[in-house]
Amino acid sequence: MKSYRKELTYNLPTRRGYINITPEVQRCIDESGIKEGLVLVNAMHITASVFINDDESGLHKDFEIWLEKLAPEKPYNQYNHNGYEDNADGHLKRQIMGREVVAAITEGKLDFGTWEQIFYGEFDGKRPKRVLVKIIGE
Amino acid sequence: MKSYRKELTYNLPTRRGYINITPEVQRCIDESGIKEGLVLVNAMHITASVFINDDESGLHKDFEIWLEKLAPEKPYNQYNHNGYEDNADGHLKRQIMGREVVAAITEGKLDFGTWEQIFYGEFDGKRPKRVLVKIIGE
Amino acid sequence: MKSYRKELTYNLPTRRGYINITPEVQRCIDESGIKEGLVLVNAMHITASVFINDDESGLHKDFEIWLEKLAPEKPYNQYNHNGYEDNADGHLKRQIMGREVVAAITEGKLDFGTWEQIFYGEFDGKRPKRVLVKIIGE
Repeated sequence: MKSYRKELTYNLPTRRGYINITPEVQRCIDESGIKEGLVLVNAMHITASVFINDDESGLHKDFEIWLEKLAPEKPYNQYNHNGYEDNADGHLKRQIMGREVVAAITEGKLDFGTWEQIFYGEFDGKRPKRVLVKIIGE
Repeated sequence: MKSYRKELTYNLPTRRGYINITPEVQRCIDESGIKEGLVLVNAMHITASVFINDDESGLHKDFEIWLEKLAPEKPYNQYNHNGYEDNADGHLKRQIMGREVVAAITEGKLDFGTWEQIFYGEFDGKRPKRVLVKIIGE
Repeated sequence: MKSYRKELTYNLPTRRGYINITPEVQRCIDESGIKEGLVLVNAMHITASVFINDDESGLHKDFEIWLEKLAPEKPYNQYNHNGYEDNADGHLKRQIMGREVVAAITEGKLDFGTWEQIFYGEFDGKRPKRVLVKIIGE
């Protein structure tokens, strides 16, 4: 069994946003030399998400509107967590979008359906944040 | 380390619905010959879900009502994604229900609690859609 | 490839609550002797969750209020599932919080960001319930 580890860093200029990280994850798989296995991709921060969905800008606007409805950023004082911080909404949004994805690697490639793409979802940005890529297989 | 891959296909006659796919996943494990390891089961489509919960028809009705409240199908024009499509709600519903499950394999069996069952959740059906089963272990 | 399996049991005195189980998961990794691999930690019950977020009591109060807003416990008769049972809300809450986490093991340690902690989330407590830890790697 082989294993591989890499951290990717993202620094979004806005509080919230989505970045397609599929090419970078595939690059990690290429580097690892692993042909059959599993890749775990997870946010290392608890106000961020890694998830799989569609690379379509209208949908990403819908995510923004929808998550603000389910777990609004403001008013800040609606949340117990927001004593010294203002990011409670980010912790909640990330529960809906998920911390991690586990994807199959087959013949050295991400084994994906036609429209599957991996995204980093940021809910408390404007600073560098890390994503972990861990691969095991052969 | 051994690995195994199979695609399962489901074609639901309705826009939304749930199918218990546990027996088919166990059949994949049997075919693989893997006794100790992990099985990844994921929707290959981004308006569908694979998740674990109870095989109880009342609960499945509750899922339907609840998801329609959190991310209603109509009116279609409430979503930016629905320019050429009408399935934005399916993309949102799948975020709540999840894309994938990772389950343990112990002594050749799905290592489950008493009531755990794996479901395919469809949010934009009436066409064939695929589920990936990837197993690694020994 | 090595594998390891252990069940952890939790018995919360309340219907809902959160327990930080990170030290126990690390102890499982230590026992397994696995240095590089993946650890799966999942609730074996379908009204409970294993998830990663912040160990901050204000946030846990926010989870309680938020989940009660998205999937309220009462009135019990609002749910089809509640014929002989009263825990439909727990099945829904667990979909938002998630069944499982998969985490990386690197050099024998949980490979985590600064604030990542693993929690058992209970949504139908007052009885012993099990969490499965399965590790594969080398």
